[in-house]
Amino acid sequence: MKTQVAIIGAGPSGLLLGQLLHKAGIDNIIIERQSPDYVLGRIRAGILEQITVDLLHEAGVGQRVASEGTVHHSIELVYKNTRHPIDVTGLTGGSVVTAYGQTEVTRDLMEARAAAGLTTIYSAANVSIHDFDGKTPTVKYEVDSQSKEISCDFIAGCDGFHGVCRASVPRDAIREYEKVYPFGWLGVLADVPPVSSHAIVYANHERGFALCSMRSLTRSRYYVQCPLDDKVEDWSDQRFWDELRLRLDPEMASRIITGPSIEKSIAPLRSFVAEPMRFGRLFLAGDAAHIVPPTGAKGLNLAASDVKYLANALTEHYIEHTDAGIDNYSQKALARVWRAERFSWWLTSLMHRFPDTEGFGQKVQEAELEYLVRSEAASRTLAENYVGLPLDFGQ
Amino acid sequence: MKTQVAIIGAGPSGLLLGQLLHKAGIDNIIIERQSPDYVLGRIRAGILEQITVDLLHEAGVGQRVASEGTVHHSIELVYKNTRHPIDVTGLTGGSVVTAYGQTEVTRDLMEARAAAGLTTIYSAANVSIHDFDGKTPTVKYEVDSQSKEISCDFIAGCDGFHGVCRASVPRDAIREYEKVYPFGWLGVLADVPPVSSHAIVYANHERGFALCSMRSLTRSRYYVQCPLDDKVEDWSDQRFWDELRLRLDPEMASRIITGPSIEKSIAPLRSFVAEPMRFGRLFLAGDAAHIVPPTGAKGLNLAASDVKYLANALTEHYIEHTDAGIDNYSQKALARVWRAERFSWWLTSLMHRFPDTEGFGQKVQEAELEYLVRSEAASRTLAENYVGLPLDFGQ
Repeated sequence: MKTQVAIIGAGPSGLLLGQLLHKAGIDNIIIERQSPDYVLGRIRAGILEQITVDLLHEAGVGQRVASEGTVHHSIELVYKNTRHPIDVTGLTGGSVVTAYGQTEVTRDLMEARAAAGLTTIYSAANVSIHDFDGKTPTVKYEVDSQSKEISCDFIAGCDGFHGVCRASVPRDAIREYEKVYPFGWLGVLADVPPVSSHAIVYANHERGFALCSMRSLTRSRYYVQCPLDDKVEDWSDQRFWDELRLRLDPEMASRIITGPSIEKSIAPLRSFVAEPMRFGRLFLAGDAAHIVPPTGAKGLNLAASDVKYLANALTEHYIEHTDAGIDNYSQKALARVWRAERFSWWLTSLMHRFPDTEGFGQKVQEAELEYLVRSEAASRTLAENYVGLPLDFGQ
Repeated sequence: MKTQVAIIGAGPSGLLLGQLLHKAGIDNIIIERQSPDYVLGRIRAGILEQITVDLLHEAGVGQRVASEGTVHHSIELVYKNTRHPIDVTGLTGGSVVTAYGQTEVTRDLMEARAAAGLTTIYSAANVSIHDFDGKTPTVKYEVDSQSKEISCDFIAGCDGFHGVCRASVPRDAIREYEKVYPFGWLGVLADVPPVSSHAIVYANHERGFALCSMRSLTRSRYYVQCPLDDKVEDWSDQRFWDELRLRLDPEMASRIITGPSIEKSIAPLRSFVAEPMRFGRLFLAGDAAHIVPPTGAKGLNLAASDVKYLANALTEHYIEHTDAGIDNYSQKALARVWRAERFSWWLTSLMHRFPDTEGFGQKVQEAELEYLVRSEAASRTLAENYVGLPLDFGQ
């Protein structure tokens, strides 16, 4: 088989790239290790920047996020059991974010791809990529124990942190930056109305961080910070709800509607960046190149902006016959990645209890929270990063 | 001897407090361990917030700072050898800071105190404070081997980090917070015109931080970050000037005028806060209660705002016969102290190279610098803290 762009990974990054390339008339095939149901079963992020929503519209899949997504105009910051609303829309001159589950984004993109009759190879085993430093890269894989090969002009690595693309780059051609945080997030998904349907709630409490978010008006996603060595079995639903309530303000705690968890898991928090994001004719995008802790809700949005830069670069290559976009992709994407990494690291540092930070660090965190809610300029730095800095920020 | 307020320490805090109390008709005596010449010989800070300048006027010593101080409207941030001016005045709606050496502040206050005929006991040996938890505190000391005693209503501990006042409080009545930084500042004072007379220059460079400041239009104060175990003898004047130039932008480096150092020393950087700041009839103010790293130029300004809160509280006590100000002093002062501690810690963390921060931390620092100079909101957080948050911020 032959195609112009072989996309490894059928998560939201790969699917969005495929759709944008298709709109530009660029032929592409997606190769995915898992089944469609497995991909749809992943429970992930749910806050979309306007840039991401705009991209979904551009990709032709904006209808459902527009009708079913819930627009947020603010953030609820809670510390010392007291609420401090941050007027995100007022502080940014009108910007919003939209609560809409990543699973739904994936579903919308899968349906659009199927409707357009584009090729997606699911359940591809032993995927490997070759010759991306030459002129004719190839992708090899097996389906039903049959060896297959696709030759292409470019490979887009949208296959996540554990994917094959970054792992195929020679070690000395890549530099990795990493920070691991000394705690985890215990997350519960439940089919109950969210305690706040107009804003995400971020709580800093002496017992640890808590977060109240939503997937829809009838499905809530809640988290509490927990030690990394806690086991899910240690946390009954009852213990989780009790702990969550303790970390909120009393009025909000009294409004939490509980219900049986339909998913419960403990996730570690990590910051990770691999540089560069281009190796000859291989491009990395999204989690394949970088991970943010989920505190700032930047993971999916960063994948979307990578894909936007990459789709533009490839469109310029095929339509305008210039490689400037391709040559600048890594630098342009990484500048945005590092801004989001900084923001996610900062918000994570501000909102969590650190077991190793006694005394001074804890007091400085409290002083920063006080300053953040009382200074208009400081509140605005939070708001403008939360809604997403412009794609051309600082250029 | 008897007085209303015994002030321990004749540095700028003690002298300013004495002057403000005198203006309010409150009797005070200052007891100082050192000689006047020793006090004047200390080389210290030189950037005054408008709040501090206003206080000097209120204390009747504003004339010389008004005529000889140099007003700064901006900050010059340098990183990767490139200048990024921060328009402090524009960002804060008209605020400025004034470059005017601490030594000059001290001199002005000493002269005013002498002119008013107020008692200052210099070269007092073995100063000790007693019974501040009762109704009649006393201060004991020796002059020319003669024991002396002052009874008073209140004691103001303006005697610095190593002073006797904080050390006289029972250990279990006080909590201390501290952070020590893994580097020092090598400082040089020279009688040469400053490279920038309109702004302090803060430089982040891969070789370490550098700072260009001034005491007057003919006296410069420059610093470079250095390892804590460096010795002053390792640093010839020539080595210092060469190192400073390397860390600036080329145009600025070419304009550095060098000259023989008239003072050269290596200082460690420390953050420190003792809580509370009141113990019965003893009040701590300035360095006796807290230390900031010098990066944000907050040390003297914080001492001045402590003194302002304390002078108001004591005036209310004597004139209005209410103790509300006295009872609130510690909480009010500490709220401002922690805001300045946070700012000083943040600016220190942003501008220095940390030997223990490889990779991720370094990249996040670079991303923060980029964000700081390119986001109006972020620039404004720097500017509003630099000129000094209002005395009633957040109340």
